[in-house]
Amino acid sequence: MQEFTITISPRLYETDALGHINNATIAAWFEVIRMRFLESLADSNEAHLKSWILASVQIDFIAETFYGFDVTGKVVEASIGNSSFTLHCEMWQQGKQTVRGKAVLVHMDVQSHSPSRVPDHLREKLVAR
Amino acid sequence: MQEFTITISPRLYETDALGHINNATIAAWFEVIRMRFLESLADSNEAHLKSWILASVQIDFIAETFYGFDVTGKVVEASIGNSSFTLHCEMWQQGKQTVRGKAVLVHMDVQSHSPSRVPDHLREKLVAR
Amino acid sequence: MQEFTITISPRLYETDALGHINNATIAAWFEVIRMRFLESLADSNEAHLKSWILASVQIDFIAETFYGFDVTGKVVEASIGNSSFTLHCEMWQQGKQTVRGKAVLVHMDVQSHSPSRVPDHLREKLVAR
Amino acid sequence: MQEFTITISPRLYETDALGHINNATIAAWFEVIRMRFLESLADSNEAHLKSWILASVQIDFIAETFYGFDVTGKVVEASIGNSSFTLHCEMWQQGKQTVRGKAVLVHMDVQSHSPSRVPDHLREKLVAR
Repeated sequence: MQEFTITISPRLYETDALGHINNATIAAWFEVIRMRFLESLADSNEAHLKSWILASVQIDFIAETFYGFDVTGKVVEASIGNSSFTLHCEMWQQGKQTVRGKAVLVHMDVQSHSPSRVPDHLREKLVAR
Repeated sequence: MQEFTITISPRLYETDALGHINNATIAAWFEVIRMRFLESLADSNEAHLKSWILASVQIDFIAETFYGFDVTGKVVEASIGNSSFTLHCEMWQQGKQTVRGKAVLVHMDVQSHSPSRVPDHLREKLVAR
Repeated sequence: MQEFTITISPRLYETDALGHINNATIAAWFEVIRMRFLESLADSNEAHLKSWILASVQIDFIAETFYGFDVTGKVVEASIGNSSFTLHCEMWQQGKQTVRGKAVLVHMDVQSHSPSRVPDHLREKLVAR
Repeated sequence: MQEFTITISPRLYETDALGHINNATIAAWFEVIRMRFLESLADSNEAHLKSWILASVQIDFIAETFYGFDVTGKVVEASIGNSSFTLHCEMWQQGKQTVRGKAVLVHMDVQSHSPSRVPDHLREKLVAR
């Protein structure tokens, strides 16, 4: 898979009194990266919103992230299970890795509200990236 | 009207790099005060969520709000128009007023999605407070 | 003054259960617009962070803002007082104005922590925009 | 260790368009639980703010969390390493577990800004809980 990247410009209210970007903001940015990645695969915005559920997230805070410099958010690897996606993400600022994370998303059947196989067209799109 | 008050404990992520509570957090807390006030009048949670729309908000930042001390949020006055509520709110911390604000809420008919008269049972509840 | 504009891509967590962008997010985006505007005038990031204090904010919610479409944030007018700036802002989405707002920022002397005259080089930069 | 619990009342802006509490809010609430727990051990607020750094966080989303019902946040276990704390947390709503998480906090020497041994008085306080 080709790396998927987006740029995030830190906002003042995303800092905290310790002077750098708050850890809860990092978790929020992970959602931004995941959603933009899923939207890049999906056919329409509406479709994917209800077809994926976040099962778990793991974040390692490697270095502080600061206000004033753009952050690059990456999906560096996506492994597909039967009904799930595992996305490996990273954040970089000024040439330095600041965050590493992993999210497990479960594909849901919108009607039955239960896990369902990741459809083939998404698998193909992912392989073709 | 009797004053309506709630207590808010500032959270670390609600501060910013300037060392105090961020102004966007103050706007968010105003929503908390308004919602708890509306919920205190309403019969059920579900009812009011879609029956009020925020038309405008005005906030004066009188003094900085800090992490580490509880904040008292108040509705000090509520004036009722035909289809609207104007709520006058305040925030206090350690005996000092930090914020003064005003919000105009419009009562909506959920079916037609258009402004509708504030129902009598809410007017009565408000007067009786 | 020439209009100052930025683009904001709504994030999923900025919506709420009513299905559109939450009003507290709108207040947060206003900070983003103001900061980017001040940064466009200032010589360095660090300088302005402590030299401006938000005195008041007024926001009119004209129409709902939705997930899935970029928002244009504008500073359409900036009037300078002795020690303050009044910024008139707007938000637009899909060719429709959704928000109108006004913020009063007070210029602070960082040493004495008291209001001080907006310096001439900022006045000149503003006029020259 | 005796369980440490706090109560969190979900706020409207903490929901998202999917109709329940957003996952980034859950990460933010974890910070609230951790901070209140650390504050219950520490002698003063100021002390701990700079003496702990979040190294990693792991969150399992077991069930949806909803607006309208209080959430109980718990620290169910805290294991102490040389210079770190591992906190095991849970969230419950209406008698059902919704979230399970784990955070690794590193104790920092504020002067040297490097990891340092968790001081004995904190270890003792923790054992005595």
